[in-house]
Amino acid sequence: MDIVNELKHANIEILSNKTDIYPYAFDTGPISNEVTLPLLVALPESTEDVQTIVKICKKHNLKIISRGAGTCHTSGCKPCKNSIIIHFSKMNKILEINKENLTAIVEPGVIVGQLQREVDRFGLFFPPDPSNLRVSTIGGAAALSSGGPRAFKYGTTKDYIINLEVVLSDGSVMHTAVDVAKNVTGYNLTQLIVGSEGTLGIITKLTLRLIPKPEYKLVTMAYFNSIDGAANAVNSVIDSLITPCTIDLLDKNTIDTIEKFNPSGWLSYDAMLLIELDGSKIEVEENNKKLYEVLIKSDAAKIVQAANAEENEKIWNARRSAFACTAKLKPNVITEDVAVPRENIAPLIKKIAQICKENDITVCIMGHAGDGNIHPNFALDLSDKSEVIRFKKVKDELFNTAIKLKGTLSGEHGIGSEKKEYLEKALDKKAYEYMKKIKELFDPENMFNPNLMF
Amino acid sequence: MDIVNELKHANIEILSNKTDIYPYAFDTGPISNEVTLPLLVALPESTEDVQTIVKICKKHNLKIISRGAGTCHTSGCKPCKNSIIIHFSKMNKILEINKENLTAIVEPGVIVGQLQREVDRFGLFFPPDPSNLRVSTIGGAAALSSGGPRAFKYGTTKDYIINLEVVLSDGSVMHTAVDVAKNVTGYNLTQLIVGSEGTLGIITKLTLRLIPKPEYKLVTMAYFNSIDGAANAVNSVIDSLITPCTIDLLDKNTIDTIEKFNPSGWLSYDAMLLIELDGSKIEVEENNKKLYEVLIKSDAAKIVQAANAEENEKIWNARRSAFACTAKLKPNVITEDVAVPRENIAPLIKKIAQICKENDITVCIMGHAGDGNIHPNFALDLSDKSEVIRFKKVKDELFNTAIKLKGTLSGEHGIGSEKKEYLEKALDKKAYEYMKKIKELFDPENMFNPNLMF
Repeated sequence: MDIVNELKHANIEILSNKTDIYPYAFDTGPISNEVTLPLLVALPESTEDVQTIVKICKKHNLKIISRGAGTCHTSGCKPCKNSIIIHFSKMNKILEINKENLTAIVEPGVIVGQLQREVDRFGLFFPPDPSNLRVSTIGGAAALSSGGPRAFKYGTTKDYIINLEVVLSDGSVMHTAVDVAKNVTGYNLTQLIVGSEGTLGIITKLTLRLIPKPEYKLVTMAYFNSIDGAANAVNSVIDSLITPCTIDLLDKNTIDTIEKFNPSGWLSYDAMLLIELDGSKIEVEENNKKLYEVLIKSDAAKIVQAANAEENEKIWNARRSAFACTAKLKPNVITEDVAVPRENIAPLIKKIAQICKENDITVCIMGHAGDGNIHPNFALDLSDKSEVIRFKKVKDELFNTAIKLKGTLSGEHGIGSEKKEYLEKALDKKAYEYMKKIKELFDPENMFNPNLMF
Repeated sequence: MDIVNELKHANIEILSNKTDIYPYAFDTGPISNEVTLPLLVALPESTEDVQTIVKICKKHNLKIISRGAGTCHTSGCKPCKNSIIIHFSKMNKILEINKENLTAIVEPGVIVGQLQREVDRFGLFFPPDPSNLRVSTIGGAAALSSGGPRAFKYGTTKDYIINLEVVLSDGSVMHTAVDVAKNVTGYNLTQLIVGSEGTLGIITKLTLRLIPKPEYKLVTMAYFNSIDGAANAVNSVIDSLITPCTIDLLDKNTIDTIEKFNPSGWLSYDAMLLIELDGSKIEVEENNKKLYEVLIKSDAAKIVQAANAEENEKIWNARRSAFACTAKLKPNVITEDVAVPRENIAPLIKKIAQICKENDITVCIMGHAGDGNIHPNFALDLSDKSEVIRFKKVKDELFNTAIKLKGTLSGEHGIGSEKKEYLEKALDKKAYEYMKKIKELFDPENMFNPNLMF
């Protein structure tokens, strides 16, 4: 009996004809010339289904790629030779929202944005806000500890996961913890699985920590005549002891590109800070006064504030379109995700701009300045061989610069298969060695997402 | 050359005469009849010293017990046969407080309270506030992910550690990450080490995340005529979408015992909620109005609020004396630390009271109700053999009850050697198995804190 029949026999829905599985050869990572198809795509409906799939794949010596929405940007969901894909579109239920415990129990295929809307109805809040939250899944967000603009105040997905159900490489199920807010009973396996990009096990259920929803929000756009000016203002804002939920920074190219393809009335300055305050109305209004003063003192060239919730949302929609707008500049777009200590954001951004200029590569730079997490969005033509070579040089220099500036390869997108060649360099030697040993411990046959990280 | 000479030869200060090392046979865990002395106490001054000690101990097949202030309550610092103690009293420097990056780099022997005072001078805040913060060390707090009353809003020590320097069992040094706020570059080794009770490696340096200091605080004491009334009020407070930094609960015995030995004008009701609001003054005042209304609606029998910062501190000093006051009731005191989903705190507290009554054991119950983390403080006479037997029964039932109520053995004190007999029962089978495998991976000769956890 071949694998297709075995899975069908186990009542697991699969896609196996070429038309159906072709889209699963791609994710939001760079498009490569060689297209590898998975053997099939399995659509489990339960943890037991996932266990069955793992056991069958183990028997046939097949690799398993776990896939949420495929929006990781690091080619983390692309199939490899002799692989099947597990797609979680049918494990997409919110099993419980518990207002008393401030927790939610969800399946991995739940869309992040949908989760936020559902908990909102209870007056609750799940803060992580990756830009792709309308499509990305909570399983993927956990696999990468996805963040987003609000991470400055609220942290990333890792800070909102208290327990995971995981299917291991022998087909057994592990619960990393129990559903309590505070827990030091044994090692923190929850956080070992979070951010491990599906390489240690397959997440089949998540218990999330929720918090009360802030009542009010206010977005400010502050324009500056230089990146340094904006970076200095970030420090002044932090120095003022206000804690905005977001301090994002956009460079001129990002501003202009968004304005070109998604006109929002944005002004063409060298840099913009996008700062969101949240909390009770009275608190936000008070902090807003302080913020305004700080921005004036920091020589903001122009300050624009949203007048109401609708305007807030309009600004965020424009901001979230940065990747899509950059994609319109050239046939391809690649986004990167480096993080440095906050004091090094201005040197990092200026260096990226310089490297790109030297190599004639179009870049729109933005990022979560409050976290030191910068996303250069590169507009490229990957059919142009010279551009591919020049971009490789930019990429090498980008990661070398981040490491030199005491930073690292990823703040929230992970390593995937795109950055694994840089991983050893970015990590302490012993840390790299132990990570590989941990991978071997959990997945000795390298069955789960074998192309990623190492 | 024996170990004493080898360490002296390496210029490492040691204590080796019996009078000097005798105190190191004890910590705040229960006093046992058998006193085991360490072979010696080493006082390293640097990471290199710690490496040297590890290498020498490895050669001589000796065990190493890492010790901060010895205040873990779980006998986590007690020596075992053929062991030496590493005491971090000379590695107690704050190496850097970086306001721009919102980070501090510290050695493990820094006292938590001292760290808080130092960062306070920069307008910054390190939230974790274990009750013993005047003596406990940051290395110990990291080893146990210590929390405290403020964990409801701010989380525990784990949430404020971004990078660790660790000496491994082969004497090498590992840096778990780099000093950036957001990081998904490889597995989260930082959080694997945090909470591992020194069983995987020896923490020699920590990079901490700081946050801006809240400007204003206000403490409210709300008295209730029943535990259920207080527990219901906790839910109503959370339901109101205020986020206090603390929601502690004290039972009648705790209130009365504090009032007896540390008179603070506290009133003898069945339960008290100790609620602290923090933030800007205007925000606290606004939330305080809401809080007051919620407490009135929740049938609080009496509400007392601190009039100023001095009164706040007076209330906290009384609260922090709970353990010390309970210790005056009988010759011995043992504190426990179980955590359950918040909805189960009232059943848990009532069950503990009932078990203790049935077994004639004196208990003062309090805890961080907002986190579902409950501390029963048992006043005991351990020279009374019958009491020892009755207490063992109470302890068994306490942990069984916590597990039955979907909770766990520890919210912030760890497992130590006191609770290891319950660990397997409290964990998922596979999680327990993998924790043991991880221990073997990092410490194959079981050199570090060999008596703990497993």
